[in-house]
Amino acid sequence: MKIAIAQLNYHIGNFDGNLQKMLKATAEAKSKGADLIVFGELATCGYPPRDFLEFRDFIRLADESIDQLREASVGIGIAVGSPTINPVVEGKDLHNSVFLLYNQEILHVQHKTLLPTYDVFDEYRYFEPANKHKTVMFKGKRIALTVCEDLWNVGNLNPLYKVCPMDMMMPEKPDLIINVSASPFDYNHAAERIEVLRENVKRYNIPLFYSNNIGAQTEIIFDGGSLIFSPDGQVYDEMPYFVEEIRYYQLEDVMKGGYRREQAKEKITLIHDAIILGLKDYFGKLGLKKAILGLSGGIDSAITTVMAVRALGKENVRVVLMPSPFSSSHSVEDAKALAENLGIRYDIIPIKDPYESFLKTLEGVLEGKPFDVTEENIQARCRAIILMAISNKHGNILLNTTNKSEFAVGYGTLYGDLAGGLSVLGDIYKTEIYLLADYINKDEKIIPENSINKPPSAELRPNQKDSDSLPEYHILDPILYMYIERRLGPQEIIDMGYDEALVRRILKLVNISEFKRHQTAPVLRVSPKAFGVGRRMPIVGKYLS
Amino acid sequence: MKIAIAQLNYHIGNFDGNLQKMLKATAEAKSKGADLIVFGELATCGYPPRDFLEFRDFIRLADESIDQLREASVGIGIAVGSPTINPVVEGKDLHNSVFLLYNQEILHVQHKTLLPTYDVFDEYRYFEPANKHKTVMFKGKRIALTVCEDLWNVGNLNPLYKVCPMDMMMPEKPDLIINVSASPFDYNHAAERIEVLRENVKRYNIPLFYSNNIGAQTEIIFDGGSLIFSPDGQVYDEMPYFVEEIRYYQLEDVMKGGYRREQAKEKITLIHDAIILGLKDYFGKLGLKKAILGLSGGIDSAITTVMAVRALGKENVRVVLMPSPFSSSHSVEDAKALAENLGIRYDIIPIKDPYESFLKTLEGVLEGKPFDVTEENIQARCRAIILMAISNKHGNILLNTTNKSEFAVGYGTLYGDLAGGLSVLGDIYKTEIYLLADYINKDEKIIPENSINKPPSAELRPNQKDSDSLPEYHILDPILYMYIERRLGPQEIIDMGYDEALVRRILKLVNISEFKRHQTAPVLRVSPKAFGVGRRMPIVGKYLS
Repeated sequence: MKIAIAQLNYHIGNFDGNLQKMLKATAEAKSKGADLIVFGELATCGYPPRDFLEFRDFIRLADESIDQLREASVGIGIAVGSPTINPVVEGKDLHNSVFLLYNQEILHVQHKTLLPTYDVFDEYRYFEPANKHKTVMFKGKRIALTVCEDLWNVGNLNPLYKVCPMDMMMPEKPDLIINVSASPFDYNHAAERIEVLRENVKRYNIPLFYSNNIGAQTEIIFDGGSLIFSPDGQVYDEMPYFVEEIRYYQLEDVMKGGYRREQAKEKITLIHDAIILGLKDYFGKLGLKKAILGLSGGIDSAITTVMAVRALGKENVRVVLMPSPFSSSHSVEDAKALAENLGIRYDIIPIKDPYESFLKTLEGVLEGKPFDVTEENIQARCRAIILMAISNKHGNILLNTTNKSEFAVGYGTLYGDLAGGLSVLGDIYKTEIYLLADYINKDEKIIPENSINKPPSAELRPNQKDSDSLPEYHILDPILYMYIERRLGPQEIIDMGYDEALVRRILKLVNISEFKRHQTAPVLRVSPKAFGVGRRMPIVGKYLS
Repeated sequence: MKIAIAQLNYHIGNFDGNLQKMLKATAEAKSKGADLIVFGELATCGYPPRDFLEFRDFIRLADESIDQLREASVGIGIAVGSPTINPVVEGKDLHNSVFLLYNQEILHVQHKTLLPTYDVFDEYRYFEPANKHKTVMFKGKRIALTVCEDLWNVGNLNPLYKVCPMDMMMPEKPDLIINVSASPFDYNHAAERIEVLRENVKRYNIPLFYSNNIGAQTEIIFDGGSLIFSPDGQVYDEMPYFVEEIRYYQLEDVMKGGYRREQAKEKITLIHDAIILGLKDYFGKLGLKKAILGLSGGIDSAITTVMAVRALGKENVRVVLMPSPFSSSHSVEDAKALAENLGIRYDIIPIKDPYESFLKTLEGVLEGKPFDVTEENIQARCRAIILMAISNKHGNILLNTTNKSEFAVGYGTLYGDLAGGLSVLGDIYKTEIYLLADYINKDEKIIPENSINKPPSAELRPNQKDSDSLPEYHILDPILYMYIERRLGPQEIIDMGYDEALVRRILKLVNISEFKRHQTAPVLRVSPKAFGVGRRMPIVGKYLS
């Protein structure tokens, strides 16, 4: 049996686009003699469709796609995920299902049982778990057809679920497992995925064909890396990360095993490639092309610019250098150098005039009080007005350059430097930002050394440094990581050897900045715990604040 | 048996504040001879605690509160909700539980079974459902102790759950039901709540004591309205909406029935009172006092100002009138008249100078293209800078004045009039805004007639009217309601008699504005489907867009 694994980039709600892509892949697979082609989870409508699932019209469109795929399944089996209506009146209205279509018939429908409802996932919001688990016979082979998380409850020390759907299928003695997935990227995920799937293969001793979506859906990035396991528990093949591809496998060859073809998983490389895809899909799927951002001469905006150029092409990225009265001259020089290295358009627009116009206009109401964060914020907001004006006039989308350390402690101006349609680096701590800069500069010096080496500064008052108001990032970041990623409490972090007053101050900063993060752009997710949809915090609370 | 129902205003994560409030109520109830006092759902930590629940340190603090309440339960029973750790390794790590404490012992713990995971609720993200359902004997009476949603699966045509926890308790022949709740307000909710609870009483034929939290938790407002039902299915008492109160009931009197004491439920009155509480708690629970907003002379900012004055006091509200070159003179006059009616501070700060300074600064990059939304947005953003500068300098929190119709179609400037820490009217359609204005003006003319009667306009270009780019609100709002609240698809709305092109245009506007709503303030929720945490939509999608 020849099986085609199609790891494709779906687009939420773009039923026709997704369908045409699958029809084309099916025709190709058929022409190559495949018996079966395997697409991804909720491939008809894209994953995650969120509350569009509550529209019956949306489900109807998914049904129509399944109908068309069924029509196209002459001589080739198609495994494809799609939402279906739960015919039972009790329980949620939908199932998250995988179809096996063949010769214009629906051979089988299996619903998903384990519904991830944590971090970025909300599946129990929409779906009723399966209560039947059946395998399906296809061309003489018995297939256990499963959806994503249904393979994820094996080998865990603290399992999230009480059942294991494959255990319920095994009495029917399946010959192989097929899994359609939408399993999002983080820098640990590819390695974890291999371990979890390997546990399945070890437990059931049959080959596994795992087809994962690729592509970014707003902030959530799917990395592909589809996997084929031989019954010996070894990776027969791992498909590439972050690109669409169709590969073909002879079941008989996979059965033999003896291969171990895993890809390298270097954290910074993965993050780099994920961000590029995130940018590409944000623009591409919205039908947009052009980006704009403010280039300060610092490391964050420099990296954001490089990423934008790599994702969108240099002709589609423009930057604006907006020195304030407190900017150092080398900042403008460093920014110019980068723009010139990249060959992109840059404009220099000093903010002095509008800034001073505001100070004058506000004279009466600021009551002569001393310079403070107010005046700093006015500068940052003048820059946002300039960038958004160009954005509005010329259709360039503003990219946000804030990093995760800054988002965490609220170091940024709402409606100022926190503005932008997409946060490119918002899930990358400052200490990781430096590693990313080194990675970008590994072959040629794209980012000026000075942007990398100078002490971080917002340059909104004379001689300002980030370290005036924040601890050094090599101290700040590990504390943030313990609190945000690991969800440790203050005492646990203090017990690791960090200064108590510092820990309490930082955790408080994180919690009282929630109102800012609530109003910022979606953050491309590259870590296991990003700000945004996967981290849901009250704004009005009093825990550690 | 004398039962005290304490409907209190808890604060998320404010363990000490919540505990002291409950200890004080317990002492009062004891002094009045109560046998039992009933608090609310997750009363120790506040509801909804969201991802704070993922911190073991947070759960430890809840446990400590339970310990202290247990110590205080000498001679009085205490029913109180709190999160507990699930000792079973499989499944979610926590339960949403209710304790019965008495004479320094834990008499009983019942976990919640039905975990709302829809709209604003995420309970299955954190909690494992109960698998044991036991009643508890207290002072000779057998009590079925339940948590909120566990009574909500009766009498539904399309039930969300497959089980009914009370059905499993009934074989033990309880004498009464006690329910601790955190059931959020919307303008239909009080009426629905009575019907659902009445269905329970009719089904089980025993009295019901239902204690609901009050208070706003960021955008979600709890309205109290705690209920006591006699076994005859009549409301023996309904406690007030939106205020803390403790009331006492003799079980023997409740058993007799024969009363029907329900409160009036007038939609606009409820919305008005909910908004006041929402504002009060947003400021109060954040330890803030002072608000600021831009007063345009239009109806939305007028109502927002009145609400702020009613919630915070006139000494804590200041407004800024910021005429643009396109503002009509009567706008400033109308705004002044309102500020004077309310006796609040107002400043007049024309935006002409900074606006023109931006036009000059941007001359090179705007390339002489004609006046368009760019220049409109610069004006709106100049206003935001002025308001935020005063906010930063003096500590006044900026209130957002956008209404639900505007949010829906994206009629507003990001980082401009869409700015603000809290959206006061963002869940109220424009057609409802007029009803609210009439309600405010019912006894005396607070809002100038002219602000109410003139055609809505943003006044950002000469002679602009909302109706230049949007249909009239009496046409727009019903279409929005069908799409947002009712989740109807385009064809279903067209079939109701609306113009096809108009329907498609409006639904598209709603969907392509998602990026704006993603970056705006939390919206005080008063309807069954508000923008924000209860409506989760992809930004990058292609459904109806």
